[in-house]
Formats: sequence, C-alpha cells, structure tokens
Amino acid sequence: MNMKHNYLENLPLAEAKAAYLSHLERAGFGNASEAVPVREACGRRLKHAVYARICSPHYNASAMDGAAVKAEKTFGASENAPIVLQKEDYAVVDTGDPLPPGTDAVIMVEDLIEAGGESVEIMASVRPWQNVRQVGEDLCMGDMIAPSGAVLTPALCGALLAGGVTEAEVCARPTVGIIPTGDEIVAPTSDPKPGDIIEFNSTIFRGMLESWGARVRVYPITPDKKEQIRSVVEESLADCDIVLVSAGSSAGRDDYTSEIIASLGTVLVHGIAIKPGKPAVLGEAGGKPVVGLPGYPISAIVIMEEIVRDLCFAFGGEPAPAREYTDAVLGKKLVSSLKYREYVRVSLGKIGGRVVAAPLARGAGVIGSFTKADGLLVIDQNCEGIEAGETVRVRLLRPMREIENALVVTGSHDPLIDEIADLLAAAGCPFRVCSTHAGSMGAIRALQNKTAHLGGIHLLDTATGEYNRSYVEKYFPDGSAFTVKGVGRVQGLMVKKGNPCGIRSFADVRRVRYVNRQRGAGTRILCDYLLEQNGISPEEVDGYRNEEFTHTAVAALIAAGNADTGLGILSAARIYDLDFIPICTEQYDFLIEKAYADDPKVRAFLDVLASAAFRARLEQMGGYTV
Amino acid sequence: MNMKHNYLENLPLAEAKAAYLSHLERAGFGNASEAVPVREACGRRLKHAVYARICSPHYNASAMDGAAVKAEKTFGASENAPIVLQKEDYAVVDTGDPLPPGTDAVIMVEDLIEAGGESVEIMASVRPWQNVRQVGEDLCMGDMIAPSGAVLTPALCGALLAGGVTEAEVCARPTVGIIPTGDEIVAPTSDPKPGDIIEFNSTIFRGMLESWGARVRVYPITPDKKEQIRSVVEESLADCDIVLVSAGSSAGRDDYTSEIIASLGTVLVHGIAIKPGKPAVLGEAGGKPVVGLPGYPISAIVIMEEIVRDLCFAFGGEPAPAREYTDAVLGKKLVSSLKYREYVRVSLGKIGGRVVAAPLARGAGVIGSFTKADGLLVIDQNCEGIEAGETVRVRLLRPMREIENALVVTGSHDPLIDEIADLLAAAGCPFRVCSTHAGSMGAIRALQNKTAHLGGIHLLDTATGEYNRSYVEKYFPDGSAFTVKGVGRVQGLMVKKGNPCGIRSFADVRRVRYVNRQRGAGTRILCDYLLEQNGISPEEVDGYRNEEFTHTAVAALIAAGNADTGLGILSAARIYDLDFIPICTEQYDFLIEKAYADDPKVRAFLDVLASAAFRARLEQMGGYTV
Repeated sequence: MNMKHNYLENLPLAEAKAAYLSHLERAGFGNASEAVPVREACGRRLKHAVYARICSPHYNASAMDGAAVKAEKTFGASENAPIVLQKEDYAVVDTGDPLPPGTDAVIMVEDLIEAGGESVEIMASVRPWQNVRQVGEDLCMGDMIAPSGAVLTPALCGALLAGGVTEAEVCARPTVGIIPTGDEIVAPTSDPKPGDIIEFNSTIFRGMLESWGARVRVYPITPDKKEQIRSVVEESLADCDIVLVSAGSSAGRDDYTSEIIASLGTVLVHGIAIKPGKPAVLGEAGGKPVVGLPGYPISAIVIMEEIVRDLCFAFGGEPAPAREYTDAVLGKKLVSSLKYREYVRVSLGKIGGRVVAAPLARGAGVIGSFTKADGLLVIDQNCEGIEAGETVRVRLLRPMREIENALVVTGSHDPLIDEIADLLAAAGCPFRVCSTHAGSMGAIRALQNKTAHLGGIHLLDTATGEYNRSYVEKYFPDGSAFTVKGVGRVQGLMVKKGNPCGIRSFADVRRVRYVNRQRGAGTRILCDYLLEQNGISPEEVDGYRNEEFTHTAVAALIAAGNADTGLGILSAARIYDLDFIPICTEQYDFLIEKAYADDPKVRAFLDVLASAAFRARLEQMGGYTV
Repeated sequence: MNMKHNYLENLPLAEAKAAYLSHLERAGFGNASEAVPVREACGRRLKHAVYARICSPHYNASAMDGAAVKAEKTFGASENAPIVLQKEDYAVVDTGDPLPPGTDAVIMVEDLIEAGGESVEIMASVRPWQNVRQVGEDLCMGDMIAPSGAVLTPALCGALLAGGVTEAEVCARPTVGIIPTGDEIVAPTSDPKPGDIIEFNSTIFRGMLESWGARVRVYPITPDKKEQIRSVVEESLADCDIVLVSAGSSAGRDDYTSEIIASLGTVLVHGIAIKPGKPAVLGEAGGKPVVGLPGYPISAIVIMEEIVRDLCFAFGGEPAPAREYTDAVLGKKLVSSLKYREYVRVSLGKIGGRVVAAPLARGAGVIGSFTKADGLLVIDQNCEGIEAGETVRVRLLRPMREIENALVVTGSHDPLIDEIADLLAAAGCPFRVCSTHAGSMGAIRALQNKTAHLGGIHLLDTATGEYNRSYVEKYFPDGSAFTVKGVGRVQGLMVKKGNPCGIRSFADVRRVRYVNRQRGAGTRILCDYLLEQNGISPEEVDGYRNEEFTHTAVAALIAAGNADTGLGILSAARIYDLDFIPICTEQYDFLIEKAYADDPKVRAFLDVLASAAFRARLEQMGGYTV
C-alpha cells in the first residue's frame, strides 16, 4: 500500500489508524520491554509473570523480643509448676533475629522472670514454632508473585524484593521527541511582538505524553526551513522512539512535514476526516512513527488523543487505559458535517439528577475554551447533527465526581462570577463553579430547560426602566424561579485613552465604529434600548453586527483599534486602560430555580455573594455598588 | 501539652492525628507554595487565581492563507460583477500572520483569481473581520484563566502560556527523607545470608510518596547506633521537609527513634491504638515532622496511609484526594479487639450483583498477602467484630472497574491456577483472576454462599476412593453447581534430598516430624484417610497440628529442616529440590456454579484450561496428567 503523496486526503479515522498501526507493526515498532531495578519499577507493567526466588522470611525468624528455646524443654510449665531455664537452655533474641540452631520457639520477654545468675523462670510452656515467623510465612520460593501484565504497585515492588527479585522485565516506555517549527513561533513570554506566536503546544503535548508514561524531549524551535527541520527530525529519530513535528502538517507554502517524512521514510496518511485535526501526517521512518501535528492547539490535541496516545502504549505493548464515558442530555442543538467525525468540547453539570452537556466554542485555536471542557462529544462522520434534549455519550475529561460536584452557573458575563468561584475555591469549598456565558436571556432559557442551577441577569424592562422583575414574572409565571439581589454596576461606553473620537453620549455611536454584544446579552438589550431612545436605527451603526460575548472582549477590540467604542462595564475598561463614559447603573441579579434554593452549593455561592471578602474584590475592580 | 515520654501510649487515631497536625501547624509547618515555570507545572495545583496578562491572539491574525484587504474595497463583488484588486489593494498573508495596517479582512487563497500582473480578481465580498482571528478571540487580558486550587492540566498550562503567564505560584510539594535503620537490614539481593532482612520498605514508601506528589530521598541503611541515626536524622532535617525513620519505633533494646526525636525536638505521640501500626512515633523537630515508622511493612503502610499522606498534602495546603469506598458483603466472620482500630485487608469480587469481601491474612509482616488486597476494611475501635454476611464499607485499593472485572477463584491451592491467570493476562484478556486458598471444602462453602465464581477441588470419598462426585451431589443436591474435569496430579511425601530419614511409605510419618495442611484442604483429607488406613492416630504424628496453607509452604519448611516430611505435589518438591515419594494420583477438578457457566470470564478460564499452552506449562511443572 503506497499512499505516499495522497495529498490532503480525507480518510476516516478508524481506517487511517488501522492502516498506520499495522504498517508500524510490520516495520517492527511496538511491544518492547526493558529490565529495570525493582526499586525504580513502581507504576510499571510486568512483561512476564514473576516468581519468588527465595522464601520470605528466608530463615526462621523470631517474631518477638525474648528467649529462643527448644519448645519441649518448656512442656509442663505452669504457675503452680514453673520451670527454670539455665543459661545454656535459651538464647536472647530480638524481633527478626534468626533462631539459633537447636531452638524452635520463642518466649516473650514479658514472660521471663529473672531467677538468679543467668537463669530465667517461666510459668507457661510454648508450642514448637510459637512466636516464630517460619521460613516462607509470607512468600514461598517458586510462588507466582504477580502474573504477566500486572502493574507494579508499591506493595508489589516490596513483595518482589522480599522474594529476592531485584530486577523486573517491564513494558518499555517510549521517549517522544517534540519538534516545534515555524518562523513566527517564540518561546513563552508575557511580552510578545505583533506576529509572534507563543509556543505553548509543546507544553500541552509534554503534559499529555507524561500522563501516558512517556519520557519527553522537546527540541528547540526550528524555523520553516525544509533542510533545517529535516536535520532536527533525523536527530530526533536517532534519540527517540516516536517523533512529533508540531505545525507545518497542512499543505501551505511553508508546510514541509509531509515532504520531509516522505524523504526519510513513508507517509501513510496525510489528512484525516476529523474536525478539528484534519491536516495531520502519519508517517514512519526507520521503523519509528513520525507524526505531523497541526499547528492549531485543539486540532493537535485531537490527534494526540486519537493517534499518539495509542502509539505510546503500543510501544511497550501495554493496553491503553479505558476511557470513561457518561450519558448526558445535550443542552443545545449541534449541526455537524458529513465530511468529518467531529469532536465537540462540552461542559458538564448534574442538574436535578440528569447530567447536562453544554457545547463550548468549536474553533480549532481556542485553548481558552478547552480548559473549561469537562467532556468530549464525538459526532460520527455519518451524523448530520444532534437535537437539543437528545441523550449523548460523552467522553469524560475529568472525574465524574468533580462533575457531580459542580454548581452550574450560566447567563450574563460578569467577572464577578469568576471572583466568587475563586473565593469559594480559596476557602476550600469542596465543589467548583462551572460557568458559561450565554447572556441574560440565556440564563432564563437555561433555568427553564433545567440546564443550570443559577444564572446572572441584568434585563432592562424598556417599558418601566426597571430591571429583571418583569422578566422573571413573564418567564416563570408559576414562581419556579426567583432572584437574589446581586450588585449595581455602571454600564458605559468604553473608548481609547483620551477619547480620540470625542464621544460624549450614546448618540455619538452613529459616527464611529461600534463593537456590539451578542443577541440575548443584557448589554445588547441595553444597546437596543439606547438606540431606540436616541432614534438611531441599527443599520446606521457601523459594527452593529460585530458581536462579542464578554465585556473584556469588547474592551480588547477597542484597545486594539478594531473598533472605536462599545458598551461595557468599568472594570473591563480599567484592565485595558480605556476611558469610560458612564451611561447608566443597572441591577445585576442572580436568578435561581426554587428547587435548588437550599442546595448547599447554591447556599455557599450566596454566602460568598454576601461576604466582606467579595465586597473588597468588587471595590478593587471598580464600578460596582452593593 | 507535653506528651513527651508518654511511653507506648495507645491513643485513638483521630486524637493522635489531630494533636499532631495542630502542633505542626503551630510550629509553622504547612501551606507552603512555590513559583514554578508553567512549562513544568503540569499536574500542580494553583495557589491563587491566575488572570491572562495579554490577549490571545494578541494581534489581529489571519485565520487563512490568502490576501489581506480592507473589506469595504470588496463590497459589491459577485460572479456577475467581479472586482479586480490591484497590487496596492491587498497583501499576501499566511495563517497566523498579523494583518497589515489598513486591512481588516482576509480573502481565502482559493477565492483569488490571477488577473495579470500582480492584480487578482474576486467574485465575492468579505465582511470586516472575516477570516481574521481578532485580538482576544481565545483569551482576553484580565480574564481569569483558572481559580485558586485549580489543578493544572496540559490544556490549562497551554492557556496560561497563551495568556502570557510564564510562571505560576503552586502548592509546594515536600521532599521526604527516608532513613532505613537496623543492624540486620541489607540492600535488596536474591541471596541474603541467614538473619539478613532485605530492606524493601523504603521502596514501598517511595512508591506511595511519589504517588502523593512528593520528592523522595532515601538515605543509606544506618545501623542501630543511636548517635549514627541521630546524625542522619539531622542531615535529613536539613535537606528535607518531612523525615521518616524506618524501624526502631517501638520500645525494644535497639529502638532509638523516640529518644532521638525527643533530643532534637518534641515527641507528640508514641503508640497509636491501631492494628497493625501501633508502635509509631509522631514527632517534630525544627518545625518539621519526624515520623518513626514500625519495621513491619504492613504496620508501616498503615501509618503511611493514615498519617504521612496527610502530612504530604498539608505541606502545600492541598486537599488530600478523596478515597473511594464500596459496600461489600463480608464473606467470613471477623473478630476484633476493643483495644484497637483494626485494618483488615480484603480481596473483593463481584458475584451475581453483590460485591463480596474475603479477609486476607492479618499479620503485620505479610507483604505477600498485601499485594492481593483489593480493599481495606477498617474495624472501629469500639467494635468487637463483624459477622459473615454483614454489609461493610471497604476502602478501595484498586479501581472498582478492575474489581468488577475479576473472576473470583477459591478453593484448593494449586500453582496451576496462577499459571492459568498468567496465560489469560498474557493473552490480553481484559479481566483478571482473583484467587485465594481456602482448601477444597472452602470452595464448596464459597459456592454455597455465592462468594466465588469457581473453585478447585480434589475431595477423596474415603468410602469409594472416588474423587469429587459424591461431594458435589451431597452439597449441591439441586444441581446448582457442576464440575469440569481438571487434571490428574500425583500426591506424595516430600523429603529432603537423599531422604535422610529413610521414609518409604506413609506409615513412616509416625516416626518423623510432619508438617500438615489446614483443615478443609483436600490434602488434609487425604492425610487423614491415609492415617486411618495405616491405623495411625493423629496424636501419634509429631507436627499434625503444624498447619500450612499451600504445597510450597510445606515444601519450604521441609527444605528448611523445620519438619522432615509432609504431603504435597511434585511441582512443589521440585522447586525446593526435595525428593518425592509418590503416594497416589488424585483428580483435581473445577467446581462451577451453574449460573456462571456462560459467564465470559468463566468461559475464558476454561478455554485456557483446555489449551495447548496450558498443557505445556503443566508438563514443565511435572506431576500432572491431563
């Protein structure tokens, strides 16, 4: 099978993987073992059964501090008829001492009475082998201590050593080389120049590889020069068992990975029908796997999980640990393409007995959202999508216990929710806050659908100028949800330092580039209300359709010059050193489903909301009133 | 509170621990943090919340290979009315490149048509910011990336680096010093001299400590010389955060740990009301914990789990991971003392929907049995025991999944069961064999009580000379269990090489030292039958009450000279290079409960039993017929 130069294919994952693994097996890759000292073998997997080479104990050992004797010399001793043992009838022994020749039992020191000279008196007899750990009491020579495939726990390592086994043949673990490539790539820094891309993928890969037992060698960043990359790949092939080339795996001007692998060995697959993760290269050189990973972190993580993980375990012939799954109710409709098997990151929470999955951002570059992922929902290639409310199988990215222990918060974005989460965690609270941004109306929908415990809302009733109350009455006419007073916060227009466009009031948005919030956000409702009040139609606003999900995202775009102004809160403006033109003070409250009013997680959240520590943080952030 | 010299107390565990931890806290121990590079921080726990220091991307980046343009120059382009862009109207960009000043969108390379010179033609317009990753798309400066206490996953490390955070303050992890002491202690070897005790405790401790995140330093073995040990303790106090002195923690002639700690600091507790584990010393010197661990491995493991684990996590202020428990039905009555909280190791198996716990050997020295433990049953100090059939709460020592995947085998000891387990594991079978030795009658009881899937039996009907059939008919009159033919095996008398006592037939056991098997063992029933046939009463046999549980244990005692002969199988005699006087061939069969006849675990076991690979192993062991 020569699939070389099958340029950006779209091979189904299972097919690509099977072809790759069987090629590697034929090339001699996998099932390697190595001998390691048992003292350093903890956590490793035995290649073969191990048998005790000696007994433990390997001699008859005293189990007590006392006197070793020939038991028959003590027969008949009692309180009425004590027996006196002469110096030559016993030997003093400590726990662990070998029994002297001719003795077969030990009398405890507590039972010995001094009887003049070196003789001792005893008031009870001992049986042969009493208070003695006989040869083999713990382990017998020839006994199987552990079968093939056993993972060496600390206790098993102890047992092997007790059985005289000092070295063990275990499944080998690979050394994996990571080669970060790219002209624009720079080492981690907090002060990158425009165009610099911070190289963090190798840190992610290293963490994943080490969790699979691999040793990792990260090579220096190599620029997009074909010969230079080829030479580092050759170096890495000499040093390592598996080579990963980070970025350059697609088919652009500077994508050399496939060509380099082809020149050194064989490219088996270039392009897999998965999303994210498509532009991967699966190759082999000198009997070793060389994988070209996509540059986008989420794409690369999918290839690591679906391909490289198997390579790591195949290297030593270990079974890859089984993945854990949960059934969950999908909170939002998902559309998927028939062209790809798709990996959707979801946050998970347990609400009223059901596990609920909320899809997170689907971009290939958004490592930020990946950190919030509790699970991975895999949509088969032959599936066009999944409806909200359907039950799906989700691969867990954190233990089920942590998911069950999460307070699920959704709704309007405000950094104060993260601050509450932090205060809870810092206080050693045993549960965590799982929060997503869905806008104030998103909070109402989530509580209606029972996919969140509580949510932040700031919904202006444009008829009355009042916040929140009328919405709750309208959407929860049965009183199944109620609000808890949160904070007052100032909304305003953020503008660059010095207000270069000379914005004075909301009416000025007509003549500058605006950045808006997404539909359903309370701040969007406020924007629409202000537009109407000022007699401005959305079409008149340049950037009205430019939608962002958070206050800081709006501030970041104004600071970067992508827009001139946008509505947001003071704390966001401060972080980006923007000027702030206050527009109004609004009421940001928490909407809570009645059924969870006494849930300890909700109670703890509200306790923090009322705490002095929280007020202090608000003060530091600025723009809030309690 | 000065508890110094409270010599071998018997303090309840909770009390001892609370006093110790609060003393250490007052002495300044615990809650330490350290700054580490994020590239090396995977798996660590954040001390404080971390916020993004820069946006990611931190500039407007092209999301595609193509041409960067000012979007408004493309407005109106269509297939009917293409627009031609001149050289100065666009700039070629690759994915990740920063957008040149004056541009705000990217046209994909696939949508560009060469139009002579350096001009290109387009047939569709782009919106502002189309195909652009705007500043902050992934992460915004000021956003909380992770709260206090978050454990840094690979993805979180990536997100921190993407947010310009290169260093993180994390919970510190302790360096723990282990000082093995004892005149008789030797480094691991397969050829110890009599009286040598192989030092394997430090390997066990190291494995446990590393699983709790600690760094470990093992000091050389130090003899029982007070000044020498003191000086190593002082050295270790200078190098480490926690010091463990292994052995010497009791009150014998050579037990110096308590005295040494008292001379360097404070002994808080000496003696805890737990079993095993009583003779522990809990001390402090220079604000650091110094713990005297008992010499017996199981005692020490209990102190490690109950005390040292908490110290390791308290050092950095991390919560110790929650332990996992299961409810289980106790298979055998347990008696316990009111003097101690007792830790009983159990094997666990899932039989017909119930988890069943079988107590293992309770000695403090038997590391061999500890390796078979699936769980730990803690019997409260105020409890005198637990009846068979009661439901108990068991602390899991392996994941529940592995326990559910175990085939539970009990009954007569034969090494062939271990060989079958090994063949199954070597074949990559997804379940494991959990086997215990309970004798042939033990197998019958276990199947009656539904505490095992199957068991090995070789039960001689002394009336007919036939094996097994009549027992199964008697104990399972309803046909709820059946036998599968196993092997024929030769039983005989094992004697030292050269047969120094001149044993010729079973009748000779009357005049030598015998070693017997436990009541209920098939070999014991054979022994009793042979005694009766030879007209010998048990009282005439020296060592009749000397009971062992396995063939190898009997062989080991004969090889060591503790006894002159005993009944057993040829393979055991061979391992110990003993001579073997064949007595009879018996039928060793497997008793299986009908309900599990089609259980895939049972089927796989029987498949191996019938395999050529298994026959080859039997041949190698010797003494079997199929």
